[in-house]
Amino acid sequence: MVQGTLYIVSAPSGAGKSSLIQALLKTQPLYDTQVSVSHTTRPVRPGEKQGEHYYFVSKAEFERMINEDAFLEYANVFGNYYGTSREMIEQVLSTGVDVFLDIDWQGAQQIRNKMPQTRSIFVLPPSKEELDRRLRGRGQDSDEIIAGRMAQAVAEMSHYAEYDYLIVNDEFNTALMDLKTIIRAERLRLNRQKLRHDALITKLLAD
Amino acid sequence: MVQGTLYIVSAPSGAGKSSLIQALLKTQPLYDTQVSVSHTTRPVRPGEKQGEHYYFVSKAEFERMINEDAFLEYANVFGNYYGTSREMIEQVLSTGVDVFLDIDWQGAQQIRNKMPQTRSIFVLPPSKEELDRRLRGRGQDSDEIIAGRMAQAVAEMSHYAEYDYLIVNDEFNTALMDLKTIIRAERLRLNRQKLRHDALITKLLAD
Repeated sequence: MVQGTLYIVSAPSGAGKSSLIQALLKTQPLYDTQVSVSHTTRPVRPGEKQGEHYYFVSKAEFERMINEDAFLEYANVFGNYYGTSREMIEQVLSTGVDVFLDIDWQGAQQIRNKMPQTRSIFVLPPSKEELDRRLRGRGQDSDEIIAGRMAQAVAEMSHYAEYDYLIVNDEFNTALMDLKTIIRAERLRLNRQKLRHDALITKLLAD
Repeated sequence: MVQGTLYIVSAPSGAGKSSLIQALLKTQPLYDTQVSVSHTTRPVRPGEKQGEHYYFVSKAEFERMINEDAFLEYANVFGNYYGTSREMIEQVLSTGVDVFLDIDWQGAQQIRNKMPQTRSIFVLPPSKEELDRRLRGRGQDSDEIIAGRMAQAVAEMSHYAEYDYLIVNDEFNTALMDLKTIIRAERLRLNRQKLRHDALITKLLAD
């Protein structure tokens, strides 16, 4: 069976990463590409479904999983845990599906250490002005809050060089095409193709 | 200046490699993708132009170049030399153009040793039957000659696993699209993008 590829996608907020991943999933069938569903201890919000938006678990359960090394990466954000289950990811990958993980540079580093065959993509905004405009949102936040968001965006972007691919999200459809191009090219790599065309290769090389 | 990428393309005869490269070059502008022009000591044939089909040089000149380590790879085929000039390749790459090299596994090995950043693509035929049919050509050759060609094709194919990418040339337009996908994805890799978007990145990371 051909293994899927695990993709990490990181970006500062305001770069359009989530819209890109959403759009990508809409054009790819589920047996082909999926987005990873995280575990979390934060409370369920109205409309959220167990196993669809998150796997909602108790703090005790999450900490048991940490102790069992069940997470490829996890973080504690304002008192709530968020993590990526190794078993969930490996199960989906084993069916040949490519999995997308939407995480920050810290999660990316943890995953690269545990699964070196992961491919990583960093998405940049087209300009500082556009990033600033997007971080301002509806203009209801103070300058200090905006400055804090910008500082966080710059901190995230300072890790761009740790990624395999770099996409500049200037024109949305071009950036989406770039994302698809990367997935298609990765499927043409020797290791994927070798398994996919195993029978053909055996026949071609037979005397 | 962004450096171009050097691509090696190898395949057994009958896999359709030359048609693929020809078709690729027709759809890409010259400032974007070019095919490498080899040096050779074989006589000029009618219609061939110096510097377009080959750089035609004397045996003494070719051997002087060998001694000066001027070739990324060279071979002697039935008494004639064929080689790829390092200077020619590096000159074109330095202008940001991707260069395609149509060579066999032996040349590919020599080039990988001298330029490890080279990307290599192996093209396979869709089936043994189709390969056999293509090697028979117009049916004017003896079974022994056909068997010899098949043995040579199998010997070439036995090196497929030394390449970065594998394309199965079943449907021509799909294989051509695969080739283009690889080139586009390689251009999205960090090192290429880092140079291309140098000014943007500097601005985004500035305080």
